[in-house]
Amino acid sequence: MHQEIILGIDPGTRITGYGVIAFHASMQPLDFGCIRPPPDLPLAMRYKIIFEAIEALIDKFSPTAVAIESQFVLKNAQSAIKLGMAKGMALLAAARRGIAVYEFAPTQAKLAVVGRGGASKSQVQKMMQTLLQLPHPPEPEDASDALSLAICCFHKLRSEACLNPSKGR
Amino acid sequence: MHQEIILGIDPGTRITGYGVIAFHASMQPLDFGCIRPPPDLPLAMRYKIIFEAIEALIDKFSPTAVAIESQFVLKNAQSAIKLGMAKGMALLAAARRGIAVYEFAPTQAKLAVVGRGGASKSQVQKMMQTLLQLPHPPEPEDASDALSLAICCFHKLRSEACLNPSKGR
Repeated sequence: MHQEIILGIDPGTRITGYGVIAFHASMQPLDFGCIRPPPDLPLAMRYKIIFEAIEALIDKFSPTAVAIESQFVLKNAQSAIKLGMAKGMALLAAARRGIAVYEFAPTQAKLAVVGRGGASKSQVQKMMQTLLQLPHPPEPEDASDALSLAICCFHKLRSEACLNPSKGR
Repeated sequence: MHQEIILGIDPGTRITGYGVIAFHASMQPLDFGCIRPPPDLPLAMRYKIIFEAIEALIDKFSPTAVAIESQFVLKNAQSAIKLGMAKGMALLAAARRGIAVYEFAPTQAKLAVVGRGGASKSQVQKMMQTLLQLPHPPEPEDASDALSLAICCFHKLRSEACLNPSKGR
Protein backbone atom coordinates (compact mmCIF):
# COMPACT_ATOMS: atom_id res chain seq x y z
CA MET A 1 0.00 0.00 0.00
CA HIS A 2 1.53 3.28 -1.04
CA GLN A 3 1.18 6.41 1.05
CA GLU A 4 -1.96 8.49 0.64
CA ILE A 5 -1.98 12.12 1.79
CA ILE A 6 -5.37 13.72 2.30
CA LEU A 7 -6.18 17.36 3.01
CA GLY A 8 -9.44 17.89 4.88
CA ILE A 9 -11.11 21.30 4.72
CA ASP A 10 -13.97 22.55 6.89
CA PRO A 11 -14.77 25.76 5.00
CA GLY A 12 -16.05 28.95 6.58
CA THR A 13 -15.67 32.67 5.95
CA ARG A 14 -14.65 33.41 9.54
CA ILE A 15 -12.71 30.20 10.21
CA THR A 16 -11.66 27.58 7.69
CA GLY A 17 -10.28 24.49 9.41
CA TYR A 18 -7.71 22.29 7.72
CA GLY A 19 -6.04 19.00 8.51
CA VAL A 20 -3.47 17.00 6.56
CA ILE A 21 -2.95 13.32 7.28
CA ALA A 22 -0.54 10.83 5.70
CA PHE A 23 -2.01 7.32 5.58
CA HIS A 24 0.39 4.40 5.27
CA ALA A 25 0.70 1.56 7.76
CA SER A 26 -0.55 4.09 10.31
CA MET A 27 -2.05 7.57 10.25
CA GLN A 28 0.33 10.47 10.64
CA PRO A 29 -1.00 14.01 11.10
CA LEU A 30 1.24 16.30 9.03
CA ASP A 31 -0.44 19.59 9.87
CA PHE A 32 -3.70 21.01 11.13
CA GLY A 33 -5.05 24.39 12.15
CA CYS A 34 -7.25 27.08 10.76
CA ILE A 35 -7.31 30.03 8.40
CA ARG A 36 -8.82 33.15 9.99
CA PRO A 37 -8.82 36.13 7.62
CA PRO A 38 -8.93 39.46 9.52
CA PRO A 39 -12.68 40.17 9.87
CA ASP A 40 -12.25 43.89 9.10
CA LEU A 41 -11.01 43.19 5.56
CA PRO A 42 -13.40 43.45 2.58
CA LEU A 43 -15.04 40.11 1.86
CA ALA A 44 -13.20 39.66 -1.45
CA MET A 45 -9.82 40.03 0.31
CA ARG A 46 -10.84 37.51 2.95
CA TYR A 47 -11.62 34.90 0.27
CA LYS A 48 -8.30 35.66 -1.39
CA ILE A 49 -6.56 34.85 1.92
CA ILE A 50 -8.53 31.59 2.26
CA PHE A 51 -7.81 30.60 -1.34
CA GLU A 52 -4.10 31.32 -1.12
CA ALA A 53 -3.73 29.52 2.21
CA ILE A 54 -5.38 26.38 0.79
CA GLU A 55 -3.25 26.63 -2.35
CA ALA A 56 -0.13 26.85 -0.14
CA LEU A 57 -1.21 23.74 1.82
CA ILE A 58 -1.70 21.83 -1.44
CA ASP A 59 1.70 22.93 -2.70
CA LYS A 60 3.40 22.02 0.59
CA PHE A 61 1.87 18.57 1.12
CA SER A 62 0.86 17.46 -2.42
CA PRO A 63 -2.29 15.66 -1.24
CA THR A 64 -3.78 12.94 -3.41
CA ALA A 65 -7.28 14.08 -2.47
CA VAL A 66 -9.08 17.00 -0.88
CA ALA A 67 -12.03 16.23 1.42
CA ILE A 68 -14.49 19.07 1.95
CA GLU A 69 -17.33 19.36 4.41
CA SER A 70 -20.72 19.86 2.79
CA GLN A 71 -23.42 21.36 4.93
CA PHE A 72 -26.97 20.89 3.73
CA VAL A 73 -28.92 22.74 6.36
CA LEU A 74 -28.29 26.39 7.11
CA LYS A 75 -29.88 29.20 9.06
CA ASN A 76 -30.47 31.54 6.13
CA ALA A 77 -29.54 32.35 2.55
CA GLN A 78 -26.81 34.77 3.58
CA SER A 79 -24.97 32.20 5.72
CA ALA A 80 -25.35 29.67 2.90
CA ILE A 81 -23.93 32.06 0.29
CA LYS A 82 -20.98 32.92 2.56
CA LEU A 83 -20.32 29.25 3.21
CA GLY A 84 -20.52 28.64 -0.54
CA MET A 85 -17.94 31.34 -1.21
CA ALA A 86 -15.50 29.81 1.30
CA LYS A 87 -16.18 26.33 -0.07
CA GLY A 88 -15.63 27.59 -3.60
CA MET A 89 -12.08 28.62 -2.60
CA ALA A 90 -11.28 25.02 -1.60
CA LEU A 91 -12.84 23.57 -4.77
CA LEU A 92 -10.98 26.03 -6.97
CA ALA A 93 -7.60 25.49 -5.27
CA ALA A 94 -7.98 21.71 -5.75
CA ALA A 95 -9.22 22.01 -9.34
CA ARG A 96 -6.32 24.28 -10.29
CA ARG A 97 -3.86 21.66 -9.07
CA GLY A 98 -5.79 18.79 -10.67
CA ILE A 99 -6.57 17.14 -7.32
CA ALA A 100 -9.73 15.08 -6.82
CA VAL A 101 -12.32 16.59 -4.46
CA TYR A 102 -14.65 14.55 -2.27
CA GLU A 103 -17.51 16.02 -0.27
CA PHE A 104 -18.83 14.66 2.99
CA ALA A 105 -21.67 15.70 5.25
CA PRO A 106 -20.68 16.37 8.89
CA THR A 107 -22.60 13.23 9.92
CA GLN A 108 -20.54 11.07 7.54
CA ALA A 109 -17.27 12.34 9.02
CA LYS A 110 -18.53 11.79 12.58
CA LEU A 111 -19.70 8.31 11.69
CA ALA A 112 -16.28 7.51 10.21
CA VAL A 113 -14.29 8.51 13.29
CA VAL A 114 -16.62 8.20 16.30
CA GLY A 115 -19.00 5.59 14.93
CA ARG A 116 -22.05 7.82 15.45
CA GLY A 117 -23.29 10.48 13.02
CA GLY A 118 -24.68 12.45 15.94
CA ALA A 119 -21.40 12.65 17.89
CA SER A 120 -20.54 16.01 19.47
CA LYS A 121 -17.64 18.13 18.29
CA SER A 122 -15.76 17.47 21.53
CA GLN A 123 -16.18 13.70 21.02
CA VAL A 124 -14.66 14.14 17.56
CA GLN A 125 -11.78 16.10 19.11
CA LYS A 126 -11.09 13.37 21.71
CA MET A 127 -11.23 10.66 19.08
CA MET A 128 -8.87 12.63 16.85
CA GLN A 129 -6.43 12.93 19.77
CA THR A 130 -6.54 9.14 20.27
CA LEU A 131 -6.39 8.11 16.61
CA LEU A 132 -3.60 10.53 15.74
CA GLN A 133 -1.73 10.08 19.08
CA LEU A 134 -1.71 13.80 19.77
CA PRO A 135 -0.71 15.25 23.16
CA HIS A 136 -3.96 17.29 23.29
CA PRO A 137 -7.32 17.26 21.46
CA PRO A 138 -6.81 19.24 18.22
CA GLU A 139 -7.97 22.86 18.49
CA PRO A 140 -10.03 24.61 17.27
CA GLU A 141 -13.01 22.35 16.51
CA ASP A 142 -12.75 23.36 12.85
CA ALA A 143 -9.26 21.81 12.62
CA SER A 144 -10.50 18.66 14.36
CA ASP A 145 -13.44 18.47 11.93
CA ALA A 146 -11.03 18.86 9.00
CA LEU A 147 -8.89 15.98 10.29
CA SER A 148 -12.01 13.82 10.62
CA LEU A 149 -12.91 14.63 6.99
CA ALA A 150 -9.49 13.42 5.87
CA ILE A 151 -10.02 10.11 7.72
CA CYS A 152 -13.53 9.76 6.33
CA CYS A 153 -12.18 10.34 2.83
CA PHE A 154 -9.42 7.77 3.35
CA HIS A 155 -12.02 5.14 4.36
CA LYS A 156 -13.98 5.91 1.22
CA LEU A 157 -10.95 5.68 -1.07
CA ARG A 158 -9.76 2.46 0.60
CA SER A 159 -13.15 0.80 0.28
CA GLU A 160 -13.33 1.84 -3.38
CA ALA A 161 -9.84 0.41 -3.90
CA CYS A 162 -10.93 -2.87 -2.27
CA LEU A 163 -13.88 -3.05 -4.64
CA ASN A 164 -11.76 -2.07 -7.66
CA PRO A 165 -8.26 -3.43 -6.93
CA SER A 166 -7.25 -2.81 -10.56
CA LYS A 167 -7.15 0.91 -9.75
CA GLY A 168 -3.88 0.19 -7.98
CA ARG A 169 -4.52 1.31 -4.44
CA MET B 1 -13.97 63.03 -16.70
CA HIS B 2 -11.69 60.12 -17.38
CA GLN B 3 -12.95 56.83 -18.74
CA GLU B 4 -14.33 54.28 -16.29
CA ILE B 5 -14.59 50.63 -17.33
CA ILE B 6 -16.89 48.45 -15.25
CA LEU B 7 -17.33 44.68 -15.40
CA GLY B 8 -20.75 43.48 -14.27
CA ILE B 9 -21.12 39.85 -13.18
CA ASP B 10 -24.37 37.97 -12.58
CA PRO B 11 -22.94 34.83 -10.97
CA GLY B 12 -24.40 31.36 -11.30
CA THR B 13 -23.07 27.81 -11.46
CA ARG B 14 -24.97 26.98 -14.65
CA ILE B 15 -24.75 30.40 -16.30
CA THR B 16 -22.63 33.37 -15.20
CA GLY B 17 -23.56 36.49 -17.14
CA TYR B 18 -20.99 39.22 -17.77
CA GLY B 19 -21.08 42.67 -19.28
CA VAL B 20 -18.29 45.21 -19.75
CA ILE B 21 -19.11 48.88 -20.33
CA ALA B 22 -16.80 51.85 -20.88
CA PHE B 23 -18.23 55.07 -19.43
CA HIS B 24 -16.93 58.35 -20.78
CA ALA B 25 -19.07 61.02 -22.45
CA SER B 26 -21.35 58.12 -23.40
CA MET B 27 -21.70 54.44 -22.52
CA GLN B 28 -19.97 51.97 -24.78
CA PRO B 29 -20.58 48.23 -24.37
CA LEU B 30 -17.20 46.51 -24.84
CA ASP B 31 -18.36 42.93 -24.39
CA PHE B 32 -21.17 40.88 -22.92
CA GLY B 33 -22.22 37.26 -22.84
CA CYS B 34 -22.15 34.34 -20.49
CA ILE B 35 -19.94 31.62 -19.12
CA ARG B 36 -21.57 28.18 -19.29
CA PRO B 37 -19.31 25.44 -17.93
CA PRO B 38 -20.23 22.00 -19.35
CA PRO B 39 -22.78 20.63 -16.85
CA ASP B 40 -21.31 17.13 -16.94
CA LEU B 41 -17.99 18.28 -15.47
CA PRO B 42 -17.26 17.85 -11.74
CA LEU B 43 -18.34 20.92 -9.79
CA ALA B 44 -14.76 21.93 -8.94
CA MET B 45 -13.85 22.00 -12.65
CA ARG B 46 -16.90 24.09 -13.43
CA TYR B 47 -15.84 26.73 -10.89
CA LYS B 48 -12.33 26.67 -12.32
CA ILE B 49 -13.81 27.51 -15.74
CA ILE B 50 -15.89 30.36 -14.25
CA PHE B 51 -12.91 31.73 -12.32
CA GLU B 52 -10.57 31.62 -15.30
CA ALA B 53 -13.11 33.21 -17.64
CA ILE B 54 -13.64 36.12 -15.24
CA GLU B 55 -9.90 36.47 -14.76
CA ALA B 56 -9.49 36.61 -18.56
CA LEU B 57 -12.17 39.34 -18.82
CA ILE B 58 -10.38 41.38 -16.14
CA ASP B 59 -7.05 40.97 -17.92
CA LYS B 60 -8.57 41.90 -21.29
CA PHE B 61 -10.52 44.98 -20.23
CA SER B 62 -8.73 46.18 -17.05
CA PRO B 63 -11.95 47.32 -15.37
CA THR B 64 -11.75 49.90 -12.59
CA ALA B 65 -14.51 48.13 -10.69
CA VAL B 66 -16.38 44.84 -10.64
CA ALA B 67 -20.13 44.93 -9.90
CA ILE B 68 -21.63 41.68 -8.65
CA GLU B 69 -25.23 40.72 -8.18
CA SER B 70 -26.13 39.78 -4.62
CA GLN B 71 -29.23 37.70 -4.14
CA PHE B 72 -30.67 37.66 -0.67
CA VAL B 73 -33.60 35.31 -1.08
CA LEU B 74 -33.12 31.79 -2.33
CA LYS B 75 -35.11 28.61 -2.64
CA ASN B 76 -32.93 26.44 -0.45
CA ALA B 77 -29.52 26.06 1.17
CA GLN B 78 -28.13 24.06 -1.75
CA SER B 79 -28.98 26.76 -4.34
CA ALA B 80 -27.53 29.38 -2.00
CA ILE B 81 -24.27 27.45 -1.50
CA LYS B 82 -23.93 26.93 -5.27
CA LEU B 83 -24.60 30.61 -5.91
CA GLY B 84 -22.03 31.45 -3.24
CA MET B 85 -19.43 29.29 -4.93
CA ALA B 86 -19.97 31.00 -8.29
CA LYS B 87 -19.97 34.43 -6.62
CA GLY B 88 -16.77 33.53 -4.78
CA MET B 89 -15.05 33.05 -8.15
CA ALA B 90 -15.89 36.65 -9.14
CA LEU B 91 -14.78 38.05 -5.78
CA LEU B 92 -11.52 36.11 -5.89
CA ALA B 93 -10.71 37.08 -9.48
CA ALA B 94 -11.23 40.76 -8.59
CA ALA B 95 -9.29 40.54 -5.32
CA ARG B 96 -6.33 38.86 -7.02
CA ARG B 97 -6.11 41.76 -9.47
CA GLY B 98 -6.66 44.38 -6.74
CA ILE B 99 -9.93 45.62 -8.25
CA ALA B 100 -12.69 47.07 -6.07
CA VAL B 101 -15.86 44.97 -5.83
CA TYR B 102 -19.35 46.40 -5.38
CA GLU B 103 -22.43 44.33 -4.70
CA PHE B 104 -25.94 45.20 -5.77
CA ALA B 105 -29.29 43.53 -5.23
CA PRO B 106 -31.24 42.77 -8.45
CA THR B 107 -33.77 45.46 -7.45
CA GLN B 108 -31.01 48.11 -7.25
CA ALA B 109 -29.81 47.30 -10.76
CA LYS B 110 -33.36 47.37 -12.13
CA LEU B 111 -34.04 50.66 -10.40
CA ALA B 112 -30.85 52.13 -11.91
CA VAL B 113 -31.70 51.23 -15.51
CA VAL B 114 -35.50 50.92 -15.75
CA GLY B 115 -36.45 53.20 -12.86
CA ARG B 116 -38.43 50.47 -11.12
CA GLY B 117 -36.99 47.84 -8.77
CA GLY B 118 -39.72 45.44 -9.82
CA ALA B 119 -39.04 45.65 -13.58
CA SER B 120 -39.09 42.37 -15.53
CA LYS B 121 -35.98 40.86 -17.07
CA SER B 122 -37.31 41.58 -20.57
CA GLN B 123 -37.82 45.25 -19.62
CA VAL B 124 -34.18 45.34 -18.50
CA GLN B 125 -33.16 43.78 -21.83
CA LYS B 126 -35.10 46.38 -23.83
CA MET B 127 -33.68 49.22 -21.78
CA MET B 128 -30.16 47.86 -22.23
CA GLN B 129 -30.70 47.73 -25.99
CA THR B 130 -31.77 51.41 -25.96
CA LEU B 131 -29.13 52.72 -23.56
CA LEU B 132 -26.27 50.86 -25.24
CA GLN B 133 -27.62 51.38 -28.80
CA LEU B 134 -27.50 47.68 -29.57
CA PRO B 135 -29.14 46.16 -32.68
CA HIS B 136 -31.00 43.61 -30.49
CA PRO B 137 -31.82 43.20 -26.79
CA PRO B 138 -28.75 41.59 -25.18
CA GLU B 139 -29.08 37.82 -24.77
CA PRO B 140 -29.22 35.84 -22.55
CA GLU B 141 -30.95 37.59 -19.65
CA ASP B 142 -27.88 36.93 -17.50
CA ALA B 143 -25.73 39.05 -19.81
CA SER B 144 -28.36 41.82 -19.81
CA ASP B 145 -28.47 41.69 -16.00
CA ALA B 146 -24.68 41.93 -15.87
CA LEU B 147 -24.74 45.03 -18.11
CA SER B 148 -27.36 46.61 -15.83
CA LEU B 149 -25.10 45.92 -12.83
CA ALA B 150 -22.25 47.78 -14.53
CA ILE B 151 -24.52 50.80 -15.10
CA CYS B 152 -25.84 50.67 -11.54
CA CYS B 153 -22.25 50.60 -10.27
CA PHE B 154 -21.29 53.54 -12.47
CA HIS B 155 -24.15 55.61 -11.01
CA LYS B 156 -22.98 54.76 -7.52
CA LEU B 157 -19.35 55.66 -8.24
CA ARG B 158 -20.35 58.90 -9.98
CA SER B 159 -22.60 60.00 -7.13
CA GLU B 160 -19.82 59.24 -4.65
CA ALA B 161 -17.41 61.26 -6.79
CA CYS B 162 -19.88 64.18 -6.82
CA LEU B 163 -20.06 64.05 -3.04
CA ASN B 164 -16.29 63.68 -2.70
CA PRO B 165 -14.79 65.55 -5.69
CA SER B 166 -11.32 65.37 -4.10
CA LYS B 167 -11.25 61.68 -5.00
CA GLY B 168 -10.60 62.81 -8.55
CA ARG B 169 -13.49 61.34 -10.51
